[in-house]
Amino acid sequence: MIHERLLALRRVMEQKKADMYLVPASDFHESEYVTDYFKAREFLTGFTGSAGTAVITAEEAGLWTDGRYFVQAKEQLPDEIRLYRMGEDEVPGIEEYVEKNLKEHGCLAFDGRVVNAVWGEKLKKAAEKRHGTIKTDEDMLDGIWKERPALSCEPVWILDEAYSGKKTCDKLSEVRAKMKEKKADVHLLTSLCDIAWLLNVRGGDISYVPVPLSFLALTEAECIWFVQSGALDDAVRGYAEENHITVREYQEFYEYVKGLEEKTVLLDRSVVSFGICSSIPDSCRIVDEPDVTALMKAIKNETEITNIKRAHIRDAVAVCRFMYWLKTNAGSIPMTELSAAQYLERLRKEQEGFTGLSFETISAYKEHGAIVHYAPVPETDAAITGQGFLLVDSGGHYLEGTTDITRTFAVGAVTGEMKADYTMVCAACLNLAAARFLYGCTGKNLDFAAREPFWEKGLDYKHGTGHGVGYLLSVHERPNAFRWRKPEAVMEEGMVTTDEPGIYKEGKYGIRLENELLCKKGEKNEYGQFMYFENLTFVPFDLDAIAAEKLTDTERERLNEYHAAVYSAVSPYFSGEELVWLKDATRNV
Amino acid sequence: MIHERLLALRRVMEQKKADMYLVPASDFHESEYVTDYFKAREFLTGFTGSAGTAVITAEEAGLWTDGRYFVQAKEQLPDEIRLYRMGEDEVPGIEEYVEKNLKEHGCLAFDGRVVNAVWGEKLKKAAEKRHGTIKTDEDMLDGIWKERPALSCEPVWILDEAYSGKKTCDKLSEVRAKMKEKKADVHLLTSLCDIAWLLNVRGGDISYVPVPLSFLALTEAECIWFVQSGALDDAVRGYAEENHITVREYQEFYEYVKGLEEKTVLLDRSVVSFGICSSIPDSCRIVDEPDVTALMKAIKNETEITNIKRAHIRDAVAVCRFMYWLKTNAGSIPMTELSAAQYLERLRKEQEGFTGLSFETISAYKEHGAIVHYAPVPETDAAITGQGFLLVDSGGHYLEGTTDITRTFAVGAVTGEMKADYTMVCAACLNLAAARFLYGCTGKNLDFAAREPFWEKGLDYKHGTGHGVGYLLSVHERPNAFRWRKPEAVMEEGMVTTDEPGIYKEGKYGIRLENELLCKKGEKNEYGQFMYFENLTFVPFDLDAIAAEKLTDTERERLNEYHAAVYSAVSPYFSGEELVWLKDATRNV
Repeated sequence: MIHERLLALRRVMEQKKADMYLVPASDFHESEYVTDYFKAREFLTGFTGSAGTAVITAEEAGLWTDGRYFVQAKEQLPDEIRLYRMGEDEVPGIEEYVEKNLKEHGCLAFDGRVVNAVWGEKLKKAAEKRHGTIKTDEDMLDGIWKERPALSCEPVWILDEAYSGKKTCDKLSEVRAKMKEKKADVHLLTSLCDIAWLLNVRGGDISYVPVPLSFLALTEAECIWFVQSGALDDAVRGYAEENHITVREYQEFYEYVKGLEEKTVLLDRSVVSFGICSSIPDSCRIVDEPDVTALMKAIKNETEITNIKRAHIRDAVAVCRFMYWLKTNAGSIPMTELSAAQYLERLRKEQEGFTGLSFETISAYKEHGAIVHYAPVPETDAAITGQGFLLVDSGGHYLEGTTDITRTFAVGAVTGEMKADYTMVCAACLNLAAARFLYGCTGKNLDFAAREPFWEKGLDYKHGTGHGVGYLLSVHERPNAFRWRKPEAVMEEGMVTTDEPGIYKEGKYGIRLENELLCKKGEKNEYGQFMYFENLTFVPFDLDAIAAEKLTDTERERLNEYHAAVYSAVSPYFSGEELVWLKDATRNV
Repeated sequence: MIHERLLALRRVMEQKKADMYLVPASDFHESEYVTDYFKAREFLTGFTGSAGTAVITAEEAGLWTDGRYFVQAKEQLPDEIRLYRMGEDEVPGIEEYVEKNLKEHGCLAFDGRVVNAVWGEKLKKAAEKRHGTIKTDEDMLDGIWKERPALSCEPVWILDEAYSGKKTCDKLSEVRAKMKEKKADVHLLTSLCDIAWLLNVRGGDISYVPVPLSFLALTEAECIWFVQSGALDDAVRGYAEENHITVREYQEFYEYVKGLEEKTVLLDRSVVSFGICSSIPDSCRIVDEPDVTALMKAIKNETEITNIKRAHIRDAVAVCRFMYWLKTNAGSIPMTELSAAQYLERLRKEQEGFTGLSFETISAYKEHGAIVHYAPVPETDAAITGQGFLLVDSGGHYLEGTTDITRTFAVGAVTGEMKADYTMVCAACLNLAAARFLYGCTGKNLDFAAREPFWEKGLDYKHGTGHGVGYLLSVHERPNAFRWRKPEAVMEEGMVTTDEPGIYKEGKYGIRLENELLCKKGEKNEYGQFMYFENLTFVPFDLDAIAAEKLTDTERERLNEYHAAVYSAVSPYFSGEELVWLKDATRNV
């Protein structure tokens, strides 16, 4: 089937005189998760991972993805598609591949709407090194993909101030003040989460991210929201009017942009598409800066923080209940990766304010745990028997915020090696959470706190230590992160970041442990403003997998303190046998 | 006296219609240490610190310096010069001060030869915000400073390949290859250490840095060395000829630059002066990049590494001998900060290949230790009695390399607080030295390893954790460093970096402990190339100041392993009572 699709695409490429065609996994908004309409790369290659780009020529087909997906891609890709393991030695990057493999004077084609401007420019330059051209005005899969799903158009709804903590008009004023500083006439915003945050609306057009498809153009006088009219009811229309938001049709944004003349346009070229940026008239001046809303929405306000803490307690109750069920029943009742994930989803649904999962649950038994972003499907769904590890990375959206938690559970006997690994991951997680640091530090400075126990042993994990988490928005939110190599944002009070080291032993097991951390101000003294993290996640680490003798005294104290906090946070919601179990699961070691 | 100098300068400023005059502590080469001719800021303000800039207006005089020098500046500056503590809240930076205090349409003046191009541009912009102008063609202190020392003109000498490890022609070829990559016709090099490294020459025109004053212009066909003819003997002239190096007079460089037409000029605007950059004709294109020699010289070659290890053993023998003498005699024979420093210098002079100190020895007793860059002078020279700490930060140049070591010694009774502090600093130093990390890490990633024990307690030190060290060049060498806030360079195999955490209690004492670390490649496995540090410095930490019970097991092991290595490295050079002492000073705790 993949073979036929590749053949069909190559026929279209020949007709259109494209020598190389590039298919990323993006939508028009640089969303991380995309609605089905945009899953062109998956349609073309069979690879279902959230990150990865296909490049097709007459002779070759390649897929580039990162360390999280190497194992999964190897399993899913047919032989005729070559896997390029990004980040490994001697594996060319995509631009390098274009430079080397586009034929002289050839044409590189991609849909300019699904490639951001920065990347599009790089691809253009790579093609130019072969004296080639680019063609970006067409989605060449349109004609081939007969059953392509329609663009999603779910109802938009308003997020009450009790949840958002800040009025839309105040947010608009703040963004306009920033525009003024930067002397911008127009601010183009295409990131769905930024628009939803700014307008205090939510929707349902993106898998796992409750936001509507839309674009936004902000000027001093106007706020124009380009959104599918079918997604708006009278309440939302009234709300827009009240807030002086002009509503226009989603697709009209492209025409609006073409009509800008002699304006100073503020936008983030790493987010806004190459198609849009290319269509801004030459008479305009572009001010290319990170969206100011990105930092504003990353710094949670007091209402959001209060809510987030509530959401996390509820979520923890569901996950603790799941842990009790799993630990009690694994090996004695039938369960699989999928059924366990479904059971956990049911427990979350029982919680007040739950609106949906924040990403596809990773429920990975034994060797599946080594596939960093494995998600079970019926064909791979493993039966959970009474041994080994089950890794569950999951999260929920609540009106009060979004959660992301990973626990790895011993569902029966585990070996000494497994315990040693689990204990190291646990110590790493708690080590970062305990970091105190001076204001000005970024995740780049702090990542070492989590990786030190790994690096010391010549080990590592091929993913970031942590990412920002949105408020009823994307579970992966910029700009805060714990990463040692990537660009960095100063850790600000009110930022929420995950802390999720892991170890992955291919063919054997995977262990990842993840808490969310709220950044807070500590003591201010002659040395400066100290900062620290407050833990938001309250679910026990699995003491059956802890080799307490391998912990240092400090690590042991941290673990015991954490478990005391877990007990204190969630025990009010438990009784009977579950409470007895919780007490034991959070005992001192 | 300072008062009269300020008055005289203000009279010149009035004549020349300058409303504000800026005096940095630099020479024509952005050297860190400058020869006496360039100590204009010291002449004007009385402040002797190596870093700091004076700004004078008709009404005010200010001095900006960083945390290392706050205490010292406060002591040395007269009341009429205000101290601006850089980095503290609400203290304006110099450009900010210019923006706020230059009068409307005023003139900001500075000598364009002693301000680098990047900074000069910023100052110009700051003046322009007041619709002001800049005047950069004059050193206004010239007429006032009657006894100004002449420009130094010490003999240049050739560094044999047995020490440099690489022929000049090979170094020139490598730089030319980099120029070709960057499509540069001319490379202008003004950093004295980079020129000395490239040409394998040394000199004596800069305090503590054995390099000659010179400029260099490199093209594909020519290597023109602008150097004082009085500094060259026949041997050096012959050597230049052999290596196809054209010698021209030092001052002719400015004319040479003005004569460049339609060339692509490679230079580092953060190093090359504003005066030089401004005089490059408009027909030229500037490629502004870090000097390629900076990275080349930071990565020591095998010959250099072998030599450096030898130099460090010799230096350690001198410092160990000093430690024995100090610990045996403090309190019973008369000694002062200065006499102790002189004693240590004598011990270094006994070592083979020693050519001079690599910086002014910091010998700081008791509360002087809290002044980060204190150096004793007769007026402050404290008698060392039998109690408290003596902090000694010192280093030597040897034909085989340059050393930099700090030890803090208990010269008698120390309190529990002092021991706890010493133990923390020692643990921090050993913690960073023990770091293993993946290739790609910079000092920004690793600094946390040293600061963690401080930050945990709400403490910090207001200086970098470490800096690169040159080979018979500057003891402070870019680009490698351990700093959490500053730009960063990847830690490469062959780089030498200091590891020097400290704690400073104003009015009480200071503790700093410093070793040098050589970066090496470790295991390469599925996770990547691991790196680690090899210790180069072999002098005991003072066990009289260690509270062993405050060390974790890991820290204790590290300390004992370090001391075993010290004993093994230097014991062959000791005998009798000294050897007995060394054995005890490196005992297990």
